[in-house]
Amino acid sequence: MRMGSVMRKVVCLLAWLSVGQVSGSYLPQDMNRTLQDLLQHYKISKSDIYDGKHVFPKEELKGKMESQMLFMGGVLEAYEKLIVHMLKELPTPSPLSATSGDKADTSGPSTAEPSAAGDTRSNLIKVLQKIRELKQHSYKEQVKILHELQKLKHIEMDNIKVQGKALWELPWIYEKANSLADNVMRRRRRRRQTRTKSRLGA
Amino acid sequence: MRMGSVMRKVVCLLAWLSVGQVSGSYLPQDMNRTLQDLLQHYKISKSDIYDGKHVFPKEELKGKMESQMLFMGGVLEAYEKLIVHMLKELPTPSPLSATSGDKADTSGPSTAEPSAAGDTRSNLIKVLQKIRELKQHSYKEQVKILHELQKLKHIEMDNIKVQGKALWELPWIYEKANSLADNVMRRRRRRRQTRTKSRLGA
Repeated sequence: MRMGSVMRKVVCLLAWLSVGQVSGSYLPQDMNRTLQDLLQHYKISKSDIYDGKHVFPKEELKGKMESQMLFMGGVLEAYEKLIVHMLKELPTPSPLSATSGDKADTSGPSTAEPSAAGDTRSNLIKVLQKIRELKQHSYKEQVKILHELQKLKHIEMDNIKVQGKALWELPWIYEKANSLADNVMRRRRRRRQTRTKSRLGA
Repeated sequence: MRMGSVMRKVVCLLAWLSVGQVSGSYLPQDMNRTLQDLLQHYKISKSDIYDGKHVFPKEELKGKMESQMLFMGGVLEAYEKLIVHMLKELPTPSPLSATSGDKADTSGPSTAEPSAAGDTRSNLIKVLQKIRELKQHSYKEQVKILHELQKLKHIEMDNIKVQGKALWELPWIYEKANSLADNVMRRRRRRRQTRTKSRLGA
């Protein structure tokens, strides 16, 4: 059993390293273990793993760093929502199993083994916390923009007052959009020139 | 009538310049005129203009340029949708008025004066084109990210295969999210140091 567990970890680690080009240095060992345990519950076949379709596309995690950061902010938000959803799907623990941590709740809607469900719950909570910490610590700015972008979806398009006001605001926005794009372009050009100069200097 | 039109333009220009801090240099004169004409149709009272609530908040159009660019991409997308919506709300032009451009279509569902509706339509189309050109020309990258972010909303959270696969992808994502944030932070620090050095050098 112990040997099997070690082998499982080695296989998981190798498979995981083969998935991406990132060398592992930020993933805490306990989180890795938690994820491995969770994958025992949320089993997935090899053919599904290697079907070439990612839940979270990696294509957007190339290119300009700021763009990557923003997309990553969205990915972390989506993970958070997904894990909260997965937690809700688990059978509700009875007061007894909630306190003792290993007693069964056979009245739950799921057919999963209740103590395993308890482990799954605590493992999902651990992963959720890690994601929330990362979001709070490093993606605050991105998440804020994402929320503001989200609000744009709720503009009352049928409201004539909103329509008039949006037209009224358009000259400022149009100016700003043009000047912003110009400034960013100019800054990029300047940086390129500085890099070329310093390369020539060296 | 001619004098009134000139006065209206002057008042509009002054009011518009007072709205924001951007000095007008990107807004083509014909677009300004088009917007003024549209504001005759989509009338809005002074009290509504100055009620302190913006349809498109300006707060996000401060701070880091790349973040501003992304938010602006979202604003342009929202404008595009809003104007398409406003076009749909106009009475459908009859084949006659569509070809002659000034004949009436009294069968439309709106009570608005039909020739005015025709002008409004062509004015809205002009503005829509300008917004689309700007989006295409300067916000392509941002709009692409926004569309990818949008796709994240459609992840099938109920699907156990998706849940398992998302857990499987998490180590790579978690690593990438951390290393990305670290790299961006390091780069910012480096730039700050370079700026300080060059200031000291000068």
